[in-house]
Amino acid sequence: VDELGAEIQRELIAILGENKIRVLGPNTSGHTSTPAQFTSTFFPLGRIRRGTVSYIAQTGNFATHTMKYILTGEHFGVSRVIGLGNKIDIEESEILEYLGNDPETGAIVLYLESIKYPRRFLDVAKEVTRSKPVVLLKGGATDAGKHAAIAHTAAMAAEDRLVGGLIRQAGIVRIWDYTHLILAGKGLSMLPLPRGNRVSFLAPSGAMLVVLADLCYRLGLDIPRLETETLRRLQEISPSFIRMRNPVDIWPAATAGGVEFAYKEGMEAVLKDPNVDAVIPILMLTKETGIPRFDFIVDLAKRYKEKPILVSFSGDRTYMEECKRCIEPQGIPTFPEIEQPFEVLSILHRCRKAMARPR
Amino acid sequence: VDELGAEIQRELIAILGENKIRVLGPNTSGHTSTPAQFTSTFFPLGRIRRGTVSYIAQTGNFATHTMKYILTGEHFGVSRVIGLGNKIDIEESEILEYLGNDPETGAIVLYLESIKYPRRFLDVAKEVTRSKPVVLLKGGATDAGKHAAIAHTAAMAAEDRLVGGLIRQAGIVRIWDYTHLILAGKGLSMLPLPRGNRVSFLAPSGAMLVVLADLCYRLGLDIPRLETETLRRLQEISPSFIRMRNPVDIWPAATAGGVEFAYKEGMEAVLKDPNVDAVIPILMLTKETGIPRFDFIVDLAKRYKEKPILVSFSGDRTYMEECKRCIEPQGIPTFPEIEQPFEVLSILHRCRKAMARPR
Repeated sequence: VDELGAEIQRELIAILGENKIRVLGPNTSGHTSTPAQFTSTFFPLGRIRRGTVSYIAQTGNFATHTMKYILTGEHFGVSRVIGLGNKIDIEESEILEYLGNDPETGAIVLYLESIKYPRRFLDVAKEVTRSKPVVLLKGGATDAGKHAAIAHTAAMAAEDRLVGGLIRQAGIVRIWDYTHLILAGKGLSMLPLPRGNRVSFLAPSGAMLVVLADLCYRLGLDIPRLETETLRRLQEISPSFIRMRNPVDIWPAATAGGVEFAYKEGMEAVLKDPNVDAVIPILMLTKETGIPRFDFIVDLAKRYKEKPILVSFSGDRTYMEECKRCIEPQGIPTFPEIEQPFEVLSILHRCRKAMARPR
Repeated sequence: VDELGAEIQRELIAILGENKIRVLGPNTSGHTSTPAQFTSTFFPLGRIRRGTVSYIAQTGNFATHTMKYILTGEHFGVSRVIGLGNKIDIEESEILEYLGNDPETGAIVLYLESIKYPRRFLDVAKEVTRSKPVVLLKGGATDAGKHAAIAHTAAMAAEDRLVGGLIRQAGIVRIWDYTHLILAGKGLSMLPLPRGNRVSFLAPSGAMLVVLADLCYRLGLDIPRLETETLRRLQEISPSFIRMRNPVDIWPAATAGGVEFAYKEGMEAVLKDPNVDAVIPILMLTKETGIPRFDFIVDLAKRYKEKPILVSFSGDRTYMEECKRCIEPQGIPTFPEIEQPFEVLSILHRCRKAMARPR
């Protein structure tokens, strides 16, 4: 923050150079590695759940209070969490390369306020993004954010159009919200990547189907027509007054055959359909209409392993929490807001597309 | 759904015409009115909390499972909730006019898939939006959504550029997500409208300050410079190594003087500042760093009535829930995701601007 600090840091750099010591930081909570059962964070977190996603963050947050949130509010775990701090030695390109080759890392989520060696970062990222999903939130994308970034890490954020170009060329999937750092990590930890962008969703409300169809369009998700056999099955479980299609209005079937029956059979019908890459049920949960045993979703996820299932809700919040507690430890992610599973699916789809892009 | 249904509906219209009966619907859960202690919804909701916001919705959702969510997951109440259904008689323009003159309605939130009489709707809305906030989600904004809307309410959604023009001319604030129907209602129920778009926010993390500053820019919120006296006070409660500014990095002050002291004094400093129209604290809640008594926020809200305070969190989810249960019944809204209070503030600001627009 002042000339004395800068002087101390210059001295530190000189000592490192003379002694060939590698350094992360300073000005960071350091790194956490669940495979190595190691952490340098000063924040008392207790046991940190092991997982497959690794975070690189130009902030101490991830190994401290954001991790606290993940441990108390979510059910997924992490592999490596690296706080970059002032980056006087180790910087994002080197760590990205390391994680690209790390068998403990299945996907990488970054928060950066600056890129120390843009050319090197681009070269490394171009390779890593072919084998692993790489998602990035860039802080300081606007003048207001740049101003705040100078106060935070003294990062001189580059012109965002240049950063945007670099991210695209690198095959990195860009996100825009802090909350999406957590949601992307959750999706990448718990779900297979979808084969394509074709989604089927089931909701207890026509209005939700309409609004979510609009959302799919904005997120680059396609709502495919279903096979004749799929439509036949959906029609079979529904009263005759409704003509079934994708997206799926599941409530008539629920009133006819019960909530569990309708969602189970409806989800299975669309999961079987070769035109569908992912399925999002908006579960209707109120005591009055009947609470399903949630195991049927776990069973479906096991039988249709290659298709992501993302769960959201309408109705009574108590049962939403109960469903989350029941199925997330068994590997099915839930999302309290109905837009979130679509946002996450879009991120996963973009990761898959980046990985498969032509050379 | 078929010719028989159309025939029955034509018959109904003929009978209504002969007998001068007014009708809402058909194909709706009807309407709920807490001031009149009346509801026609078939959905068992128990006691519905009374509030100041009224909903007009071209879907039965609002008086059924979305209301269930509001009653179990939120602490605000509603005044009138009107489901439009097929709109064979009463339609949105007439209701909007009624609610515009309704002393029990402080703000109006709409969900529409079509506008039956666009010219009439525009004329009515132009007046109502000068005295009350009016927020609208339009389903069927995209081709995918239009397709789903035909299946839902047989609504032939108009070209969205025309709808967008009408909304702007009418002084209505447009939103894009289903979840924002609930969040807008929450904000409009619990908060005063801000005088302007100038926000101060306090977070326990530099990265959050950066990302949220970017978000402010995208949402049309300004992050003003603070008065010298405000900066002096913020500096006084903080260790000397940090230079305080807006947005406010509150964590150094918390480590020096405790979490409650830092947020309380920091919030009061910025609430006092004449350059600040609204304040958003991101509370850091973990047992290890100390859980504040949340009453100080209620006290500040009472003493600075004209400035909206919107609360969000970082840290342990258990305490976030505890804070929500403590302060929401006392009138302070909380939001589980850090982007949400900014989104809501932006909606409130746009409402204020629309109400004050020149004739």
